[in-house]
This record gives sequence, structure tokens and C-alpha cells, in this order.
Amino acid sequence: MTQPFPFSAIVGQDEMKQAMILTAIDPGIGGVLVFGDRGTGKSTAVRALAALLPPIRVVAGCPVNSPTPDKCPDWAHIAQHDIVERPTPVVDLPLGVTEDRVVGALDIEKALTSGEKAFEPGLLARANRGYLYIDEVNLLEDHIVDLLLDVAQSGENVVEREGLSIRHPARFVLVGSGNPEEGELRPQLLDRFGMSVEVTSPKDIDTRIEVIRRRDAYEMDYEGFMSHWREQDAALRDRIVTARGKLPAMETPEEVLRDCAELCLALGSDGLRGELTLLRTSRALAAFEGAEKVGREHVRKVAPSALRHRLRRDPLDEAGSTTRVARVVEEVLA
Amino acid sequence: MTQPFPFSAIVGQDEMKQAMILTAIDPGIGGVLVFGDRGTGKSTAVRALAALLPPIRVVAGCPVNSPTPDKCPDWAHIAQHDIVERPTPVVDLPLGVTEDRVVGALDIEKALTSGEKAFEPGLLARANRGYLYIDEVNLLEDHIVDLLLDVAQSGENVVEREGLSIRHPARFVLVGSGNPEEGELRPQLLDRFGMSVEVTSPKDIDTRIEVIRRRDAYEMDYEGFMSHWREQDAALRDRIVTARGKLPAMETPEEVLRDCAELCLALGSDGLRGELTLLRTSRALAAFEGAEKVGREHVRKVAPSALRHRLRRDPLDEAGSTTRVARVVEEVLA
Amino acid sequence: MTQPFPFSAIVGQDEMKQAMILTAIDPGIGGVLVFGDRGTGKSTAVRALAALLPPIRVVAGCPVNSPTPDKCPDWAHIAQHDIVERPTPVVDLPLGVTEDRVVGALDIEKALTSGEKAFEPGLLARANRGYLYIDEVNLLEDHIVDLLLDVAQSGENVVEREGLSIRHPARFVLVGSGNPEEGELRPQLLDRFGMSVEVTSPKDIDTRIEVIRRRDAYEMDYEGFMSHWREQDAALRDRIVTARGKLPAMETPEEVLRDCAELCLALGSDGLRGELTLLRTSRALAAFEGAEKVGREHVRKVAPSALRHRLRRDPLDEAGSTTRVARVVEEVLA
Amino acid sequence: MTQPFPFSAIVGQDEMKQAMILTAIDPGIGGVLVFGDRGTGKSTAVRALAALLPPIRVVAGCPVNSPTPDKCPDWAHIAQHDIVERPTPVVDLPLGVTEDRVVGALDIEKALTSGEKAFEPGLLARANRGYLYIDEVNLLEDHIVDLLLDVAQSGENVVEREGLSIRHPARFVLVGSGNPEEGELRPQLLDRFGMSVEVTSPKDIDTRIEVIRRRDAYEMDYEGFMSHWREQDAALRDRIVTARGKLPAMETPEEVLRDCAELCLALGSDGLRGELTLLRTSRALAAFEGAEKVGREHVRKVAPSALRHRLRRDPLDEAGSTTRVARVVEEVLA
Amino acid sequence: MTQPFPFSAIVGQDEMKQAMILTAIDPGIGGVLVFGDRGTGKSTAVRALAALLPPIRVVAGCPVNSPTPDKCPDWAHIAQHDIVERPTPVVDLPLGVTEDRVVGALDIEKALTSGEKAFEPGLLARANRGYLYIDEVNLLEDHIVDLLLDVAQSGENVVEREGLSIRHPARFVLVGSGNPEEGELRPQLLDRFGMSVEVTSPKDIDTRIEVIRRRDAYEMDYEGFMSHWREQDAALRDRIVTARGKLPAMETPEEVLRDCAELCLALGSDGLRGELTLLRTSRALAAFEGAEKVGREHVRKVAPSALRHRLRRDPLDEAGSTTRVARVVEEVLA
Amino acid sequence: MTQPFPFSAIVGQDEMKQAMILTAIDPGIGGVLVFGDRGTGKSTAVRALAALLPPIRVVAGCPVNSPTPDKCPDWAHIAQHDIVERPTPVVDLPLGVTEDRVVGALDIEKALTSGEKAFEPGLLARANRGYLYIDEVNLLEDHIVDLLLDVAQSGENVVEREGLSIRHPARFVLVGSGNPEEGELRPQLLDRFGMSVEVTSPKDIDTRIEVIRRRDAYEMDYEGFMSHWREQDAALRDRIVTARGKLPAMETPEEVLRDCAELCLALGSDGLRGELTLLRTSRALAAFEGAEKVGREHVRKVAPSALRHRLRRDPLDEAGSTTRVARVVEEVLA
Repeated sequence: MTQPFPFSAIVGQDEMKQAMILTAIDPGIGGVLVFGDRGTGKSTAVRALAALLPPIRVVAGCPVNSPTPDKCPDWAHIAQHDIVERPTPVVDLPLGVTEDRVVGALDIEKALTSGEKAFEPGLLARANRGYLYIDEVNLLEDHIVDLLLDVAQSGENVVEREGLSIRHPARFVLVGSGNPEEGELRPQLLDRFGMSVEVTSPKDIDTRIEVIRRRDAYEMDYEGFMSHWREQDAALRDRIVTARGKLPAMETPEEVLRDCAELCLALGSDGLRGELTLLRTSRALAAFEGAEKVGREHVRKVAPSALRHRLRRDPLDEAGSTTRVARVVEEVLA
Repeated sequence: MTQPFPFSAIVGQDEMKQAMILTAIDPGIGGVLVFGDRGTGKSTAVRALAALLPPIRVVAGCPVNSPTPDKCPDWAHIAQHDIVERPTPVVDLPLGVTEDRVVGALDIEKALTSGEKAFEPGLLARANRGYLYIDEVNLLEDHIVDLLLDVAQSGENVVEREGLSIRHPARFVLVGSGNPEEGELRPQLLDRFGMSVEVTSPKDIDTRIEVIRRRDAYEMDYEGFMSHWREQDAALRDRIVTARGKLPAMETPEEVLRDCAELCLALGSDGLRGELTLLRTSRALAAFEGAEKVGREHVRKVAPSALRHRLRRDPLDEAGSTTRVARVVEEVLA
Repeated sequence: MTQPFPFSAIVGQDEMKQAMILTAIDPGIGGVLVFGDRGTGKSTAVRALAALLPPIRVVAGCPVNSPTPDKCPDWAHIAQHDIVERPTPVVDLPLGVTEDRVVGALDIEKALTSGEKAFEPGLLARANRGYLYIDEVNLLEDHIVDLLLDVAQSGENVVEREGLSIRHPARFVLVGSGNPEEGELRPQLLDRFGMSVEVTSPKDIDTRIEVIRRRDAYEMDYEGFMSHWREQDAALRDRIVTARGKLPAMETPEEVLRDCAELCLALGSDGLRGELTLLRTSRALAAFEGAEKVGREHVRKVAPSALRHRLRRDPLDEAGSTTRVARVVEEVLA
Repeated sequence: MTQPFPFSAIVGQDEMKQAMILTAIDPGIGGVLVFGDRGTGKSTAVRALAALLPPIRVVAGCPVNSPTPDKCPDWAHIAQHDIVERPTPVVDLPLGVTEDRVVGALDIEKALTSGEKAFEPGLLARANRGYLYIDEVNLLEDHIVDLLLDVAQSGENVVEREGLSIRHPARFVLVGSGNPEEGELRPQLLDRFGMSVEVTSPKDIDTRIEVIRRRDAYEMDYEGFMSHWREQDAALRDRIVTARGKLPAMETPEEVLRDCAELCLALGSDGLRGELTLLRTSRALAAFEGAEKVGREHVRKVAPSALRHRLRRDPLDEAGSTTRVARVVEEVLA
Repeated sequence: MTQPFPFSAIVGQDEMKQAMILTAIDPGIGGVLVFGDRGTGKSTAVRALAALLPPIRVVAGCPVNSPTPDKCPDWAHIAQHDIVERPTPVVDLPLGVTEDRVVGALDIEKALTSGEKAFEPGLLARANRGYLYIDEVNLLEDHIVDLLLDVAQSGENVVEREGLSIRHPARFVLVGSGNPEEGELRPQLLDRFGMSVEVTSPKDIDTRIEVIRRRDAYEMDYEGFMSHWREQDAALRDRIVTARGKLPAMETPEEVLRDCAELCLALGSDGLRGELTLLRTSRALAAFEGAEKVGREHVRKVAPSALRHRLRRDPLDEAGSTTRVARVVEEVLA
Repeated sequence: MTQPFPFSAIVGQDEMKQAMILTAIDPGIGGVLVFGDRGTGKSTAVRALAALLPPIRVVAGCPVNSPTPDKCPDWAHIAQHDIVERPTPVVDLPLGVTEDRVVGALDIEKALTSGEKAFEPGLLARANRGYLYIDEVNLLEDHIVDLLLDVAQSGENVVEREGLSIRHPARFVLVGSGNPEEGELRPQLLDRFGMSVEVTSPKDIDTRIEVIRRRDAYEMDYEGFMSHWREQDAALRDRIVTARGKLPAMETPEEVLRDCAELCLALGSDGLRGELTLLRTSRALAAFEGAEKVGREHVRKVAPSALRHRLRRDPLDEAGSTTRVARVVEEVLA
């Protein structure tokens, strides 16, 4: 088994990498939606990040990767108590997947016959404590996306069929990729992703050569390449772990709240999810950068990722979302 | 288990809060349709209201939350008589739900084999004596909405399959949210909701800061936040309980009937459901405000909620429904 | 169990009430199609009429409400002979109903196994000798409407599956409501309804107040309200019963036939169902009014109900159907 | 059981009646397609004709109405040899009918298990030696119409499923009604009907009165009305029976063949089915009229029925099909 | 059982008859597509040709008509070795046929249970060594046509389901009829038919009379008519049998190859199937005409049939395909 | 059993042949998409190439063609160890294929009952170590194409159903043919094919004659023809085998990387898959040509195949993809 391409070896794409790191610090920020060209390494980045994170400790055999036996669901009938280490899970959600496959299948017939709940856990169980990746999320059926965002937000998967009810923890970060040229997401869905980032193919020749060189080295000289980058990945992991520890005690000054509200009002983003996400994202970045309290500079840095997908279309303003966010950030946080 | 966000701590949105309070006083008014932007706390408000209401007393194990054993349906085979307290139920109706899941599934095969009716109660059973919440009701299939409104009105769920017939009480308040930009409801359905309210994101910066601050406090300092608001919720609960008691004896003067009829005629609302709902809603408000009889001031206050969704489109009048109702109220009740 | 709102207490809507009364005198006239606004009491009126009619005497347990044991179908296996009284049935046909649910389900498998016909009667069985009500008939699938009109006309429901054949009487009056703004009925179907009426919300303020007052009284003071109207309903029932008795012996003068034919020809109604229905409807009205023979005044009164839904669209005549019928009645029967 | 309305009592509609009589003389002519307004008695006419024909003698219990036991199909397992008389069958083909219902269902499972062919005969079996009536044939699925025309032409119904093969005689006359304003038949299907006729509501007031009078008398004074017309029906039946006997020996002069060919060529009808049908129809008419050989006058009389549905649309000729046939008949057979 | 109409008695339609004869000499040429008007005897011609050919000798009971027991498929379990004669099979492919019905149904369940392959052969099995006729091939689903052309080309039907594999010979000539006005075939499908011919109703009066006369005689005087034409059919059969024998040794001069290539290039037909079919068709014609080698005159005669359905649409050339082929043949083979 | 047409005997079509040879040297390049006219031998070429390659050694009975028993999947229960030789497999993917048929069917029921995984391998299992050919890939459902490209890239087929998971190696080269005039592939899918080539019918008369001559000889004189070309095929096989051996040690100079990046940037191809494929394809060609290191001349030769399907549509540039690639190659690699 080979390891995924190292996260640190990804050339450029800083905004995407920053967004993914922030989800590793505070998974409560919500999913990341990655817009952009094909072949820009979206799937590679998710797998790379998960491989970089510290392994999680799970009860052997537990279908939802619980850290202790008491948190394994009843229906799993886990008898043993062995704790093992596993990489942070990354689960792919294939296009055309059925709801049963996602949430798990509850076999009523069997439940009635055998007297016990017969539940076959789905992809959400496997994704618990990890990442759920959807390529081309704009091609997924709305009701599945909706369901995923619901579970991602509540952290719990509840399957109810004809009076039976099964629940299990399902805390994961949803990462979706999409090409805006191929079908838009409903505004409701957009709004429920924590961050969005835009990726493009590098336009600079040396960057491109560097990308090919690293990819070719990874394929032609796997061992040598991995040993070179392992150290940098380790350093990044340590920063993430430290930031996680600092998060609960971060101070949030009143003016940062005001900055968040003014930004969102000036941008005309619907509802209040924008402000809340902006606040949490800024706090996670502050923790990652080692600050003691959240500051305007953190809000400024994460504002594009946290807000660009929440703008109403403005027919009189032909600028793209990113430009509009940047312009308003300049005006409001000047 | 954490409690929902406190009803009293919801910033602004007074019309929505008033409408929900009125349904708690007289559930016979019919459902509430909440139009408006995303992220404006519609779902939060329903859950908050239900958590604020006094717990209901139910027979343990009764699938329809009956208060006494004799009201539990036969098919539930409830042998025991223990009465327990439960929070007022709030049931979510997911998009894409099947009719069987809503009304319950009647297993003919089993019924014929075992000689007894085999009924798996649905969401309507669980919602009895509580709230049924539908997000984005305009995306639900018409026949399901129709069915829900029928049951909500009759207070009884009847499931008939091939000669077998099951019935159980299903008295609940239907709360639906919808974004009018995404698909309209058929006029028939609109007309059968008791009230409609419009919610928008606050446009005022200090209000928005207050919203974020409370939300952040709820998430970061749950215990402190809840103890602060618990008292205000309790006071509101007492007012609702008192109003419920006063309702049957409220006086309804002749001129209030005339006001209702003139308003509806002037607005050109189809049919007569408008007048009847306006009357009941005014009466519930009068009870809530401690009045001894219904008065013009009550009609005036509830008219927008009770009527705005019953207007015919008037191509010569570009004003929105709310403005049209307000204008006519000024003219008729001057 | 509360009784439906009294038929006599329905304010206005005279044409609809007249049409329903005529179907109670001669069910052979065919169904009634009620066009018009929402909330104008269409469903209320059907239920009210049925509640007013004398109860029917039926064999206890007979699935088709037969008056004597020999008329109960074989497949019902009715062993007892007890005769009981029941209110005239009103059966609702829900949108989206399946054909099996309507006509009954014939279980071939079971029939072959047990050697006896296994038939689960449907809504048509329950509607025998009563009313079948369809809200929004224009939204029902054509093949179901077709089937209903066939059975309503022949008075017999025949279910045939793979060589087995089940039949039972199914004499009922079909009452359909529809909003012409929401989808038209095929001309074939229109033509097969006996009568059509148009209802609108009252535009007069005192009428509207009277409607609300009665409705509110019905809900707030059920007992007092019902005792007030019970007498008037009884008087109407007596007139209907008397008219039923007179019907077979009514005289039909030659000039009435000519009036019917000339009216239909002048109106350009397709086919000859128009004349026949006009004749029967006039005769039922004459019986209701206590006349000894059918006269021009009866034809004149029922012509709009019997003919307005049978007109061809005339692109040069912008007048509505009702106006066109009235104009031609004036010219032809001057 | 009441008898259908008498064929002789049908007012006017001579072309339709002639076409139906010809099919009773030579069923090999093929089906009749009746175009026209609603309520013009198409279904009534078919039933009336069948009731008028001499009863057929069939083996009791034979599912295909065979005249002698040796012609009953094997799969029917007819043990007895009793011959009984039955009216000529008229089978209705409901819209939305399944293929299994039409041709019969072959239960492979059962066939394999029990070792004998398990066939549930369909509507085609019941229609053998009679009429199959389809109302609104233009709304029937093409593949069903196709199948019906195939069987009508070959006189045999063959059901093949996975290697098993069932066959039984299915000689019937197909009568279809259609409204050309509601969806056209594919030219292929049109071409395979033997004759087509057009019916319209009578425009003449006295005719219409006569129609109503007779219909009303049939319903109000059934016995008196039937005894009046029974004699005329009997006379017509005798003529039909006589014509059937003369048919095989009818002479067909060369110039009649030429007339047929020239007419079809002049009309530009596709293919050669037109000529053949014209010839057979003329021959049946000659027999009905008691002639010894077919003559130009017979061709002239049946040409509209035999040809009008076979014309290609001619964009330069705005005359209807009937007019075009008549004009060409005038020119060619002058 | 009556015999089909004799092939020799078909009036005119020489190109269609020639194409069918060539398929009888070299079935490897591929199917024939017959374009044209209704009622021009396409189906009659196929049946007539098959009836004319020498009977085939088959193992009694063999589902694929194998000539010797060793060629019967295993799954048929043919125990006996009796050889019987049968007419060349003509199998009709009904519209709406399922794939299982065409290729045969493989019952996995049974196969696994009984340990032997459970295969119910389909229409392709019955068509082996004969003709498969599809009326209105343009209305057949593409995937079925595709499948038929694949099997027709490979001569083998392979049915694979979940790891099981059944094969049997399926060598047949596909004859499809279509009306180009009613929906076109995909160019891919057109290209895979060997020949196409166009048929029209005769425009000449004497020809038409002759057609009717023969048809009428066939129906009215079956025995006399058949005995008249039996001899001519026998002579044609002998020529076909002789040509079959000569085919393998026919010489193909270099210039004929060049003629074929130049024709196709000049016509701009896609791909190279055109040349190959033109070559084989010319060779079959040469054999039929008793020549020793293929010559330009043979190419010239079959070019329209072999090429007209392979032309690209040329928007600048309004001539029909037949005209375009003829013009190019004149230029290239001048 | 006859052998396929020899690869060496294919006339012209050099780019297609080159692309197929390169996939035989480095299957990791990814699939080949062949655009072009019908009848240009696409399917013939795949089969010919596979027949030319050295036979593979497989464990007898292994469903995935594994070379050694330890690589046979568990679920196959291969008991024996016999190694046999088999031709390189070529599997056809029929249009309309189901996902189960492609990936294999996992019978949950059986798995639960028998305690062992019940897996019926699909087409991907049979294609392992060979070719998977799809005719008209643009007509295949997107989700199947997607799935095929995923498996082709990962080299492993994973089937997961309700908690069970089956995996087996599935390394194959995907060859798809398509006609761009008939429906385009989504850009995402295009991008994931390694190479694309365009084929056309030869326009040169002598080439066409040569094609026909060889095809005719193959059919008429199979033995003679095959023995003539066997030697040339053997020589080609030896070159391919030698190139496979050289591949791992090929040197890749820095300037070749730069050439690849500059080409792709100049062409504006999305993402970076273009560069990587261009690099691998050049390397395979260099190995085939016996070079020691990859050079600009190799890049130049394969650039059209590797890049033409990755261009964005440029509305200002009317040149076709091939022309645009050629022009940019001239400019960049001048």
C-alpha cells in the first residue's frame, strides 16, 4: 500500500490548503466547497491532509470509529475492548449513490423477525471522525446533499423506518468539489457549506514544471520522494494539534463581532450563517497562527473563503464574488 | 443532551414569534407558513417554542402521545397505565418523504395472516399534540402537503388500505418554511394555512451583532447563557397557559365580524377561510393580551399574518402582499 | 361525532344547491361539476345534502350497502340478514388514488389458491347509493375520471382480471369540483357530467358576515346552532322525498322536447347528451316544484346547469358560457 | 337485463349503419373506424347491431366461443359437449388496457410446475366471432392497436412467451371510434382499418327531436318501445343472413377491378390495401342489395367508406377527405 | 394451413425481389432494409421467398434448427437423432419486444439450483438458418436493432448473465421495413444493413389491376391460383440453389475492386463497409446470372441497393439517394 | 475458431495504431478514445492488437486472470494451481449494460445466509490484464463511463454493498470509440482518457482498394492470408516486449518537462493531467523507438494524441483541435 501524495508537496493552491487546515483545527466550521478546473488536485489534497493528521484511536471493529467502547453503538454488538490506531478516514461519495448506502440500511423485516435491530451502517458511519469527499457535488441529487449537510451540522445520523430508530455519531468534514460551469448548487446548499475556495491550474510555467516534476518523482521514485517530504508534513501536523488545543480559550473582542456583522451586511449575504462562520473561521486561523485573540487581520484573511458563496447575485455588479468580497473587505475593514 | 436555543433569546422577528405564540394558544387556527431568507432562525424558533411550552402528560409507550390510556388507539396494544411527562413534540418532515412514512404503514399481508391490524405509525402519530415542521415546503410534493393540511384540519389521521381502516388522533400545528423565489405553492394550499409571516435578516448592525453574540455565547458558554434566559421563557409560558384558559369565554362583538368581512372583501381574498381565520386569530391575540373581548385593535394586529397569503395577484397593483394588506387595513379600519 | 354543517344553513349558492337537490331526486341525471373559487363550501354542501337525506336501510356488513340480502354480492359472503339504517354515504376520492383502490382489488393468486374469488371492494363499493366527491377533478388522471363516469352511468362496477370477473352495483352521484384556471377537463369528460354549476365567494358584505356568523356559531355553539336548523332541513327532505315519488308519472309535452332540441342546436352543443340531460333535469325540477308536467319554465331554469359545459369554444364570441346559454335561452324560449 | 337500443331505431347515421351491416356480411373486410362528435351513438350502434344478429351457437364453457368441441382450444380443457346459444359478443377495450389483458396471460411459472400450459385467455378470446369496440382509439397505445389489427387480420391470436406458444382463433370485427381533433392515428394504422365513416350530430331540429323522443321512450317505456322496433330489426337480420349466403358466388366483372384501381390511383392512396378493401366492400354491398354481380353503383356507394382514410395529405387541396373522394369518384366513374 | 402468396406472382418490385434473392444466395451479405409505402407487399415478399426456398433439414426438436445432432446446443438436451424437413423459418419481431424475448432468457436462479444452465431460447434461436423480419424497423428501440445487427453479422448469439454464458448459432437474414418519413435510423445502423431497396405502389393502372386480380384470385380461388404459380417458383428455386454452389469459386478481377472503391469514394460513403458489401453483392448476382466472374455490369446493377443508404447528406445536392448513386455510377463506370 | 484480422495488415490509420501500441507498452497511460467515421476498423484494431500480444499466463479458473494463485481473490475459491496460457482478453462493453454487470454482483442475501461472500464477477474482472472496448462511448451513461475511468486509473475494482466489500485487481486499457457528431462527452470524462486519435476513411483510391483486397482475402482465403501476415505481427510483438523492459530506466531530461508544461500552458488545457500524460506517452514512444532518453521529437510526435481532447473551446479560433495542437507544437517546440 502506498501513501497518498504529501500535503506539503502540493504546489501553490494556498487558499484551498488553508481552508482544509482550518477544518482540521475546528471541524465545526462546516464543509469546504472547492470550485475550479479539473486536474487541480482537489481529491489529492483531501487525502493528503487526512494522511498528515495524527492517527485516531478507535475500538477495533467499531463501525463508527468510536474512541471508547461505551461510545460504540448498541446495534454494533462490539464485545471486545481493544483500542487500535487508524488513519483519519476519507470516504468517497460516488455519484448516483443511494440514500440507503449513505445513511445505512435498516432491515425492518429482519428486525421484526430476529427481535433485534438489523442495521447495515453506511458511508456516514465510516466517515465519522474524518472526511467525506464528493467530487462534482453539483451533479449529486439535492436530497442527498441536503441530508449530508444536515448530518454534518448535527453530528448525528438518525435513520428512522416505520417506527424503528437508529442513531450513531457522524462527525465529519464534508469536502465537495464542483465546476460552476456545469450546474449550480441551490443557494440553500451553498449557504450551508462553511467555506468555499477557488482553485485554478497554475498559469506560471515554472510552477507547472514543479508540479509535474513532483508528480513524476512520486510515481517513479516513491521512496525517495516520500522521505523528503515526511518532515514537512510532520511540522504542519504539530501546528494543527497545537492550534486545536488553544481554540477553546481564544478571546473574541467586541470589535471583531462588529467587523463580521458589518462585512456581511455590506455584502448583503442572506441570513446569519455568514457571520457565525466568519467568526469561527477567524478564530481557528488565529489559533493556527499562534495568536492569543482573534483580530481583524484574521477576519480579513478568511473573509473570502467564508463569504464568497453567500452573496446574492447583483445584476448591476459584474465583478465576480471574490472581487466583490475583497472590495467590501477593503472598504469596511479599512 | 442540550436544550434548544431559548425562544426569548431570539432577537427581533416579532411577527413570526407572535404567530407561533398564537398557535400555542389556539392550535385550531391552522398552520403557519414562514416566508423568507435562509438562516433567519425559522427552525430554531419552532424548536424553541416547543421547548418553552409546558410538558405534556402522556401514557408511557403510547405511539400518539395520548394523555389517558382510553385514548390510546387499539392497534397500539398499550397494556400499562403509567403517565409520564414529555416535551411538546416537534417532528421534522424530510423532503422526499413517502406517504407511508407520513401517515403510517398498514401491512395488509400481516393483518390478514395474524388476524389483527398491523399498523406501523408514521410521523403524524409522533406529531400528535405538538408541531410538525417542514423546511422548504414549496419543494414538497403537492399530494403530501395536501394530506398534511387535511389531517391538520380534521385532527384525525385515517389510513385505509383495501378495506382495512386505521385511525388515530393527529392534532398538531403545521409550520412550513418556504422561499417564494424558489417555486410557489398552489393557491389552494396557501389558503389552507392559517397564518403566514415574513422574516428577513436584520439589516441593523447592532441587531446583527446581538444575534451573533447570543449564538456564540450559546455555543461557547451553554450553561451561563441558558440560566440567563430560562426566567424569561418561564414568564412567557405562563402568559400562554393563562390565555388558553380564557379563550372559550371570549366575547366576539358584531362589529368585529363586520371588520373581518369588510377587510377580506376589500382585499378580494377568495373564499371565506380568510374571515374565519382572521376571527380566530384575533380572538387568540385578545386572550394573550388579557382582554375580555375581541376588538378592532386585535384584528388590526393579526390581519397581515392571517390574510397576506390569500390575496389574488393584482396585475395593476405592484405593491407586495404585506403593503396591500396594510393599506386596506388603514382604509377599512380607519 | 358531530354532524356536518346543515344544508339549509348554507348562505346563498342557490344554483349549486338546486343542482344537488335535483341529483337527490333523480340520480340518473349524472354527476355535478362545480367550478369556482376556493373556500366556497363545495365539499361542505355535498356532506350537508347527504346528511339531510333520509337514512338508507342496508344489510349489516354488506360492502355495497344493499337494501336486502339477495342483493348483496356473492363474494361478500354475508350470512346474516339484519337490516340497519345508515346515513347516505359520501365517499371522498383522494388525488393520486390508484385504480385498484377505486374499483377494488381482485387477488388472482388468492382466488386460484382458495378456489373462491378474493375481492377487496374499493371506493366505488362504499359509494353505492350515495355520493362520490372529488376535489379538484381537473387534477385527477383522465383514465380514473373516465372510469368513474362509466360506472356512474352504467350503475355497475365490473372488475375483470385474467378471466375472473367480479361485479357489484355502484349507483352513486359523482360530484366534482374544479378550478377552470388550473387545467381543463377534456371535452369528452365534461360532456359526461350531467350538470355544472359555478360558485363564487359572496361579494356582498352582509352575506359574508352571515356566513362567518353561522360558521362561528357552528363551531362555538354546536348544539344551539344545530337545533335551530334541524327543522328547515327536515322540510327540505320531505320535498325531495315527495318529488322522488312523483317523477315516474310526470308528463312531458311535445313542445318541451322541441325546446330542448332547439336550445341545444342553437348553442351548437356536440352530440345529444345535452338534450337528454336537459329533459331529465327539467323533469326533476318540475317534480320538486310540485308541477304535474314539465314546462318551459323548468327548462329555462335548469338550462344553464345542464348545458354550459357542453359548448364548443367560439372564437368570435367572447362571452362566457353562462352568458351564452342565457342569451340563447332568451332568444329560443322567448 | 335490458336489451340494447334497437339498431333500426337509430335515427339517421346511414353511412355508419351501412358500414356496420357490411362487416356483418363479410367480417373479412376489416374493422370500421368511426370519426366524429361525441354523443352520436357510436357505441350504441355496435351494441345494437350485435344484438340484432342471430345468436351464435357455442360449446358451453368454451372461452373462445367455438361452435363445436373440436374447435375449443386444448388449453381450455372443455370436457362437456353441450351447445348453447349466445348473443354475438361485443367486447369493450378499455383505455390503458395491458397487453396481457388483451391477448391473455401465459403463466410460465405455473406451466413449468404443473407440466401443462397455464393460459388465462384475454379480451381477444372473448371477442371471437363478435365485435371488439374501442372508444377513442386515437388515445390507445400504438402497439396495442397494432396488435389488434394484426390479430383481426390473421384471425388468430398467438401468445408466445419463452418458448411456450398458445394459439386460439380470434376472428372479430374491430370497431374504433375517434375524434380527429384529439390526436391522429399513424397512417399505417389508418390503412389497416377496412372502412371509416364520419358521424355528426344531426343539425335538423326534427331529427334531433326524434332522437330524444326515442331515447326517452326507451328509458321511460322500455317494453312498449322495444316491441315496436323488434320487427324491423328482424327484417334487417334476415337480409344480412341472406347476403352472407350469396357472397361466395358473387361475380366480379373485369371493369369493376379497373374501377377500383383507377379510383385508388386517382386518389393517390398508398399501397394496394385500398383496392382490395374497395372490392370486398362493394361485393358485400351487392350481396346485401340482392344483386347477382358487383357493379359500378356498388363501388360508388362504398368508395367513401373504403377510401377516405387512405388519402395522403395534399397541401394544395384544402377539401376534406370525403369531398376529395366524392370528387374523384365523379371524375373516374362518370 | 394455406401457403403464402407465391414469390413469382408478386407483380413488379424487381429491385426488392432481386435483393431478397441475393440474400438467399449469400446470406453473408447482411440484411435488407426496405423503404417505402404501406401496402406494397414487403412482408408478403419475405414470406413468399422463404416458402420458395428448399426446405431445410433439421434435428427434430432442436431449438436452433441444427442440421445434425452434434450442432444442437448442449443446453437443449436433444436426445434423439431424427432428421426432419422444415420450411425455411421466417420469424417476426414485434415492436416493443424485450431483449429477453429476442436473445433468450437465462434463468440464473434455476441454473444455480438445478446445477444446469436454464435457458429459454428466444426469437434469434428460432430464426437460425432463416429470416428475421421487422416491420417498421425505425420504430424499434435502437439497442434491439443494434443487437440484431451484431448477431446477424457474427452468426452467433451469446447470452451472458452474471458469469454464465450461453451461445448458439444464429445465422439469419435480417429484413427490415421502414418508412423514412416516420423517423430515421441512426447512420450507424443504416450502414450495417447490407442492402436497401425502395418500393412504391405501382402507378400504372394495368399493373394495379393485375395486382388486385392476383390477390383476389389467391383469396377466392386458392387452389387454382397456387397450381398456376408453383412451377415458376420451382424454376426460381433451382436458379438460387445453383448460384449458391457456384459462389465460392467465382473470380473477382482487380478492376472490379477498383470499380467498387472508386464508386464509394466518389459517393463519399463513410467507412469501408460499402465497398465490401458491393463486392459480395455483385458476386452473388454474377452467380445468379450464371457468369463465371464478377463484372462491371454486376456492380452497376447492385450499386443502388448496396450503397444508397450509406450516403452522407449533402446539403448542396437536392437529389435523392437513388439519383445520386445512379449519377455517380454513370460517371465512374462510364 | 478463426483469428482476428492481423494488426499489421491494417492499412494506414497510423496514429490509431501508434496509440494502441503505446498502451501495450505502458498501460498506465490510460485509455484511448477513437473519434471518427464508421467502418474505419476501430474494433478490428483492438482485437488485432490483443491477438498480437504475447499470451498471458493465468491460473486456470481464476476469474480475474491472475498470474499466480496467491493473487486470485479469496472469493473465487481457486483450489488448483495450474497455470495456463490465454490470449490477452478483449472485453466488449455493450450499450445499456448495468452497473452490476460491469462491476460484478454482490448477493447480500446469499452472503448472509451462507456466511461467505457471494460475488458474481463482472466484465471488469474478465478485462483484467487486457482491454475493455466500448463502441460509441458517447452513448454510454455517464456514471458507467465515470466508473470505468475510475477503475482503469486505480487498477482495482471495489464493490461495496451494505457493509460488505469485495475487491479485485482490474488493470485494463479502456478503448472507446465515438462519433463527435452524435453527442459529446463531458469535458471531465474526456480529460481522463490518456490519448485520443482521429480516424477517417482513406480518401485515396489505391489505399481503399488495398483495404478491400485484404479484407476479401481474409474472408475468402483465410489460411493463405494469415500465414502471410503472421511474421510481421511477430516482429511488432517483439518490439513491444523489448520496449516494456526498457521503460523503467528511461531518462527524462529537464527540458522535456519544460516542453510538456509550455505546450499545455500555450494550449490552455485545464488541469495538469495533460502534462503528465504527455510525459508518459513520450516516454513509451521513446522506449518503442529504442531511444535511451525521452526527447523533444517524442513529445512532438505524441502531442496530438495526448492533448487534442483537452482543449477548451475557443470561440475565436475556428481551427479544429488537431490543427490547434499542431500549430502550438510548431510555435513552442520550434
